[in-house]
Amino acid sequence: MKRFFSVNDVPNLDNLIKQARQLKQQPLAQQHLGKGKTIGLVFLNSSLRTRISTVKAAQNLGLESIVLNVTQDSWNWEFNDGTIMNGNTVEHIKDAARVLSTYCDIIGIRCFAGLQDKAEDTSEKVYMLFETYATVPVISLESATLHPLQSLADCISIAEHSAKNSFPKVVLSWAPHIKALPQAVANSFAQWMHKMPCELVVTHPEGYELDPKFTGNAAIEYNQQKALENADFVYVKNWSSFNNYGKILPVEEDWMLTNNKLRISNNAKIMHCLPVRRNLEVSDEVLDSANSLIYEQANNRTYAAQVVLQNILTHAT
Amino acid sequence: MKRFFSVNDVPNLDNLIKQARQLKQQPLAQQHLGKGKTIGLVFLNSSLRTRISTVKAAQNLGLESIVLNVTQDSWNWEFNDGTIMNGNTVEHIKDAARVLSTYCDIIGIRCFAGLQDKAEDTSEKVYMLFETYATVPVISLESATLHPLQSLADCISIAEHSAKNSFPKVVLSWAPHIKALPQAVANSFAQWMHKMPCELVVTHPEGYELDPKFTGNAAIEYNQQKALENADFVYVKNWSSFNNYGKILPVEEDWMLTNNKLRISNNAKIMHCLPVRRNLEVSDEVLDSANSLIYEQANNRTYAAQVVLQNILTHAT
Amino acid sequence: MKRFFSVNDVPNLDNLIKQARQLKQQPLAQQHLGKGKTIGLVFLNSSLRTRISTVKAAQNLGLESIVLNVTQDSWNWEFNDGTIMNGNTVEHIKDAARVLSTYCDIIGIRCFAGLQDKAEDTSEKVYMLFETYATVPVISLESATLHPLQSLADCISIAEHSAKNSFPKVVLSWAPHIKALPQAVANSFAQWMHKMPCELVVTHPEGYELDPKFTGNAAIEYNQQKALENADFVYVKNWSSFNNYGKILPVEEDWMLTNNKLRISNNAKIMHCLPVRRNLEVSDEVLDSANSLIYEQANNRTYAAQVVLQNILTHAT
Repeated sequence: MKRFFSVNDVPNLDNLIKQARQLKQQPLAQQHLGKGKTIGLVFLNSSLRTRISTVKAAQNLGLESIVLNVTQDSWNWEFNDGTIMNGNTVEHIKDAARVLSTYCDIIGIRCFAGLQDKAEDTSEKVYMLFETYATVPVISLESATLHPLQSLADCISIAEHSAKNSFPKVVLSWAPHIKALPQAVANSFAQWMHKMPCELVVTHPEGYELDPKFTGNAAIEYNQQKALENADFVYVKNWSSFNNYGKILPVEEDWMLTNNKLRISNNAKIMHCLPVRRNLEVSDEVLDSANSLIYEQANNRTYAAQVVLQNILTHAT
Repeated sequence: MKRFFSVNDVPNLDNLIKQARQLKQQPLAQQHLGKGKTIGLVFLNSSLRTRISTVKAAQNLGLESIVLNVTQDSWNWEFNDGTIMNGNTVEHIKDAARVLSTYCDIIGIRCFAGLQDKAEDTSEKVYMLFETYATVPVISLESATLHPLQSLADCISIAEHSAKNSFPKVVLSWAPHIKALPQAVANSFAQWMHKMPCELVVTHPEGYELDPKFTGNAAIEYNQQKALENADFVYVKNWSSFNNYGKILPVEEDWMLTNNKLRISNNAKIMHCLPVRRNLEVSDEVLDSANSLIYEQANNRTYAAQVVLQNILTHAT
Repeated sequence: MKRFFSVNDVPNLDNLIKQARQLKQQPLAQQHLGKGKTIGLVFLNSSLRTRISTVKAAQNLGLESIVLNVTQDSWNWEFNDGTIMNGNTVEHIKDAARVLSTYCDIIGIRCFAGLQDKAEDTSEKVYMLFETYATVPVISLESATLHPLQSLADCISIAEHSAKNSFPKVVLSWAPHIKALPQAVANSFAQWMHKMPCELVVTHPEGYELDPKFTGNAAIEYNQQKALENADFVYVKNWSSFNNYGKILPVEEDWMLTNNKLRISNNAKIMHCLPVRRNLEVSDEVLDSANSLIYEQANNRTYAAQVVLQNILTHAT
């Protein structure tokens, strides 16, 4: 593996999950791989889980981490070629990427969707330009449209809770929120599920359709209750409208996931990438039930990051 | 030791001080203990000495540190169970504590008193809830009412400057300040001194009485000069009123510690946890005298943190 | 070497450059030197390249880094002796320096010119006081008037691109900018070039004369085109006026460096410390040409820092 932007960079997902589960058993077994090497973690947006789990994964591999918490204000990048930089951009992304490449052996970058300009977000301008100019492998710590480390951790969690040769029904269920959030986690989850042995159903109010580039041929079901029927895994997540880009649309029904709604499921496991707005997105009873995988997902973030870094360090798959 | 919130978590203070003084001689002797392990340092309030000394202590033990500088604004925790989180809290403390526990083997947390709500501060709501939900050992990096790592460093400093089998007179002397500060350092010092072989006298203007839960049977003396008589150690510190909670009360006398005031002492050693407002809390002549222990106290912060971490890593005392 | 504030702390620059180029070949060969030791990096101003390259250099030497990103607002130091600290300063620089010295074996400090008070900046008040009170070696991460780690990296880059026993013509060329920048990089470059086997010419609009303390007997040429004639290296950098302290003066000619202007040079190599305002200071065609050394300079920052730290750790030269 030489980059990690989406599931398309994974030659064999089944193998990658197996590797991750193996190193989870012996996280320090490959400490020599990172010896004398450095990963730079560039956060254009704030991060908690991703930062800590990736630093932890790096530590497990003997890899040094240097974290750059930059806001787009304080280190405002120029993206356009040929611009006369007499405005508020202080460094061209080509220089930033090239310079960081001199200090780091791998660079992770987080660059959220701004949710203002659909074309800019869907083009993944920041990530793609950064990767173009960087001279070392780049991994996504969540980009405008995707969050592949989260999705890989989710795949590991689903694999851990699926019987061999099973074909579970996985439901991605939209949840209420008070803020307009990116679609990245949901897009990414859909994209990775298409590579997993499962049936994916996406349920959300009308108007919240995700980019079909990521949902592909997954069933879209506007009736949440119907979608939950016989579900084996329910992934709860809020996102803002893609069609009415970045907007929160009025929703009449109550989309919060509750135990009552889950009675129709196949004793479904519950997933959420966290942080979760309790009793708004999902009820306490669901999150704190024995079927909740939320802390296991968080824990698997470490091994998702570690298996990706390990593959990049060994240039193998 | 499985937690470190107060002196009550220390089975044998005399032993702990001896261990600290031993490892001060050979700080790198136990580097294997932390191998492959991580301490998470969560700062809900800013920190300089505590952060650096704890990171240094962790390094000495071969333990990796991950620092989280979070402000209560940017990562506003929900504390109440069952709340519908549709307001300004973004993550429930139970999820924060559980998730951090998946990445860290030990968690240190700093959560100052807000000085607005006496009941909330005295209940140590934040620390206690965090510890309740965490699944790994938690240590205090200063909580609403106590600062045990500072107090342990202070005990080490006093032990280093006390003759064997002596019973020094230790005076905790209130000092002027321009801001309303928590009582944590003073409370904690009093609490730890009760476990040390010494006589503790607390002196302050009327109205600045500390919580008797911590001062216990220590003598309270409103006349600073009288308190300083024959003192062997004088610990200077400002705090805001506990009874008139969080307030700065008008004080007529000059409570700044000077050499002149100390003439009546037994050539007392001077202590302060730093940072100190020079010539407001204590005069330069006192702080820069040969009797000043302020930099030794700062240095002992490393060994206080290290002996605590070492004990937690070995689950012994 | 026991400090690193300017080229005057380097007994033999030629040797230092040779050492740096050697360790660039084997950056991990001296990992034992930093074992169990810590460098504290105190940033009173923001930093990207300097922070990452110095942390990387420390890692290469097995030295732990603790970074302190402090703004002068949040940790406002008192500089004057005897002041009654009842204002907005929260800690005396003497206490800050002494305390940090207890936790760190080496301290790096960045303290930019404020560009408001010429006397204060030229006296290097912050750096000098900090060093006075520190009890461990101090290195500059850019001070009010000098940026020696940048200059050392620049010397390494020039040495790498100079024929043996050559005596290149080096031109320091002022560039346009929209902000008032310190003179530190330019001063420092001039000062170091005087110790290099080269001819230094400084070119800038009238009114932008640097402090003659640093430019010494270098030729000053107000005609940029004339200065560039036969140049082997051209170092581009903006700075604000020294005589009209900290001001941006009106400049009529276009001082941006272009290929057209360089035709008269001796196929000159182009240097810039970065970040660079493209097409304002220097044109894209120049920066992206084969003659551009800008990324090599950035890369050499690591080895400049590493050779300095190595010399301090070994107390040798």
